[in-house]
Amino acid sequence: MENKKIPYRHFLEEKDLPKQWYNLRADMKELPDPMLNPGTGEAMKEEDLYPIFCKELAHQEMDDKTRYVDIPEEIQEVYKQFRPSPLVRAYALEKALGTPAKIYYKFEGNNTSGSHKLNSAIPQAYYAKKEGLTSLTTETGAGQWGTALSEACEYFGLPLTVYMVKCSYEQKPFRRTIMKTFDANIIPSPSNTTEAGRKILAADPNCTGSLGTAISEAVEKAVTTEGCKYVLGSVLNQVLLHQSVIGLEAYKSMEILGEYPDIVIGCAGGGSNLGGLIAPFMGDKLTGKKPNTKFIAVEPASCPSLTRGKYAYDFCDTGKITPLAKMYTLGSGFIPSADHAGGLRYHGMSPILSKLYHDGYIDAVAVKQTKVFEAAKLFAQYETILPAPESSHAIRVAIDEALKCKETGEAKTILFGLSGTGFFDMVAYESYLNGTMKDYVPSDEELQKSFDTLPKVPGIQD
Amino acid sequence: MENKKIPYRHFLEEKDLPKQWYNLRADMKELPDPMLNPGTGEAMKEEDLYPIFCKELAHQEMDDKTRYVDIPEEIQEVYKQFRPSPLVRAYALEKALGTPAKIYYKFEGNNTSGSHKLNSAIPQAYYAKKEGLTSLTTETGAGQWGTALSEACEYFGLPLTVYMVKCSYEQKPFRRTIMKTFDANIIPSPSNTTEAGRKILAADPNCTGSLGTAISEAVEKAVTTEGCKYVLGSVLNQVLLHQSVIGLEAYKSMEILGEYPDIVIGCAGGGSNLGGLIAPFMGDKLTGKKPNTKFIAVEPASCPSLTRGKYAYDFCDTGKITPLAKMYTLGSGFIPSADHAGGLRYHGMSPILSKLYHDGYIDAVAVKQTKVFEAAKLFAQYETILPAPESSHAIRVAIDEALKCKETGEAKTILFGLSGTGFFDMVAYESYLNGTMKDYVPSDEELQKSFDTLPKVPGIQD
Repeated sequence: MENKKIPYRHFLEEKDLPKQWYNLRADMKELPDPMLNPGTGEAMKEEDLYPIFCKELAHQEMDDKTRYVDIPEEIQEVYKQFRPSPLVRAYALEKALGTPAKIYYKFEGNNTSGSHKLNSAIPQAYYAKKEGLTSLTTETGAGQWGTALSEACEYFGLPLTVYMVKCSYEQKPFRRTIMKTFDANIIPSPSNTTEAGRKILAADPNCTGSLGTAISEAVEKAVTTEGCKYVLGSVLNQVLLHQSVIGLEAYKSMEILGEYPDIVIGCAGGGSNLGGLIAPFMGDKLTGKKPNTKFIAVEPASCPSLTRGKYAYDFCDTGKITPLAKMYTLGSGFIPSADHAGGLRYHGMSPILSKLYHDGYIDAVAVKQTKVFEAAKLFAQYETILPAPESSHAIRVAIDEALKCKETGEAKTILFGLSGTGFFDMVAYESYLNGTMKDYVPSDEELQKSFDTLPKVPGIQD
Repeated sequence: MENKKIPYRHFLEEKDLPKQWYNLRADMKELPDPMLNPGTGEAMKEEDLYPIFCKELAHQEMDDKTRYVDIPEEIQEVYKQFRPSPLVRAYALEKALGTPAKIYYKFEGNNTSGSHKLNSAIPQAYYAKKEGLTSLTTETGAGQWGTALSEACEYFGLPLTVYMVKCSYEQKPFRRTIMKTFDANIIPSPSNTTEAGRKILAADPNCTGSLGTAISEAVEKAVTTEGCKYVLGSVLNQVLLHQSVIGLEAYKSMEILGEYPDIVIGCAGGGSNLGGLIAPFMGDKLTGKKPNTKFIAVEPASCPSLTRGKYAYDFCDTGKITPLAKMYTLGSGFIPSADHAGGLRYHGMSPILSKLYHDGYIDAVAVKQTKVFEAAKLFAQYETILPAPESSHAIRVAIDEALKCKETGEAKTILFGLSGTGFFDMVAYESYLNGTMKDYVPSDEELQKSFDTLPKVPGIQD
């Protein structure tokens, strides 16, 4: 093999790590529509979020002006324990594919949470502690976010209650154990510990839960508990802000290596990983510095919010107690089939990414899970990393794009986000390997039924 | 927190990665006693190993003269996909302990195998393929080695059969799945696929297996199959040679950082991780360059080969078909209690490490597993890594040494090997967290019964 200039894995030095997060909204020509109060239909103000979020995070949620937000020293210190993540040149995969394309991926799975989720868990726990809160609540689906936040809360000494989607709670006992290792209190959702949970169980006692139901419970628990707030691992503007460290590191590494991506690919559930990865590259596109970069959001065919959803105001939760957000949504009542493995099961999509997609800055592709696991297995074989099912959505499309390059002979530079490790997803791998994995795709009728639950907002959405 | 000169995590640049393995035997004043043919009592020659090992590996096994062994270019290329591993300064743990000690660890868990085992799996698969072999066999206990070798064999296109210790096979279905992802054939051992397995089952149909039984089966399968050889993930001289990359990288990183360890600590089962980590530092001690470095091997109290074993010739397997090795051993029939979680369950210890221990160059400590998991939990809380139970043996003693420094006020530099991730050990974590974990310690009578199985070697060991 020839001696290559570009290393297999690039790690930034500590001095080059981001000291500020990048707020993509500051460079958007048109901003996402504001969150609305579901009762009055009025735009939410920062203060209106104080009952749910701590003040600094409410501020970050609403602040669409500040381009760069300082990362507090204390957070930088914790980041340094697991960052930088490596930017990897996939030489072995390229060779296996026989593609002239250059494939890079940013791997976020090398910390206990096994994913990028720790990037936002750390600041959310930090600000809560700093503001004197005495406990937090959250929800988790596949368990990556719950693990990350359990870890962050233990680090800063904050008790945490996690509402875990019931089917994941039952299918992933090891995720429960790892959260227990960090002393978190784990409750399967829907549960009878909240009004929202009791209502959902009354309507369907066998409900296996969804992120939407778990969010309802976690929010209710937060607003009814003294000194307690709710935190969320995706969808929100503040989360995309924190996750910009992924993109900022990748950007800096590529700069040092003399590279720039032609295509940036990420899996998209609520949008935390994709939004973080693309941030600085999308900034270059929005400001005209690099107008031709292509961005691809990859979502599961079983939960296709961008490719088959409606761009509309919707609740962020199934219990309909959160503010309304304008986003691509399948309806807050949508619950993906139990055949769907792994995360990426949220009914909506980050309002920032939704707006960018709506305005044509991002492409979206929906892929079936057996094709996703086929890509995951190939990747594992050559790249010495067993990828998470979520991340493997991005691998699938990166491989497809690299194979297109093989046909056309173009040596495009592809960057994708490898958001996590698959160590906790062996049940899904087993079903793929033994041939029992199913490819579920919701019917138009099923989606229409779900769209019918979209809220009416007088004068805005009738 | 003050701004520190030494980074949290140090990664070598590709140019600084080892291009040669270091063969510690070349610097030992007294060499380990030779392997013996169990039938004749005669010292084994390189050719005598050809039926079991491929030629290059047989050569590496016997070669005690060549100080530095070139790492083939093809192996360096694969190493670069997951190496360097980070050398981490445990600032957060130091602070939590309130110790003046400086704690460093070398983390090997950031590849699919989840451990250091891939360092030797790659060369073993490479040499076998190069020599034209058409399949391999091996054994695995906790599954780290089996995963690593499955990965390496898939990479080089070699079919692999793994004999997996039966209790691990049953307790760790996810380890099976990950090996299946790499297309390995997994057989629970003892099995009826070999003469050795059938004998063991005839004597005890409920035998839950041990590394010794699995080795017997894998070796038999290899010697009775055309084009097939056996490979082993620990104990052997060749394995310690390959694993020297751990120590060589740590050494180079510390050199760049202007540091040198006063104490080097590693967990010890068969010795692959410990032997690899200490190699260059022990070289400095043996050659008088750094005579005062302290080395500590940490073993489970449930399988205490160094601290309670005999230094004697013994079989490497339970079926008594391998050559005899002079090592600290509990007797090849010793099977640790099922209460013992995780790896480090081999009855013997690397002949190189056994000799060094016997000659006073290494200290050894046996620790109980609840104390090990206590250390693991504390470590996870502060260092954003969930450690493997095996590696946590080293953490336990590193913490104990750091606490001694707190008492004495000495700012010693401690380096320990964090050989793997605990993602596949959640059953053990769960038993620790829910209080059902037991501390098993074999009785003197039990050990004596096992010692009675040591082989007689006329004129050498009567």
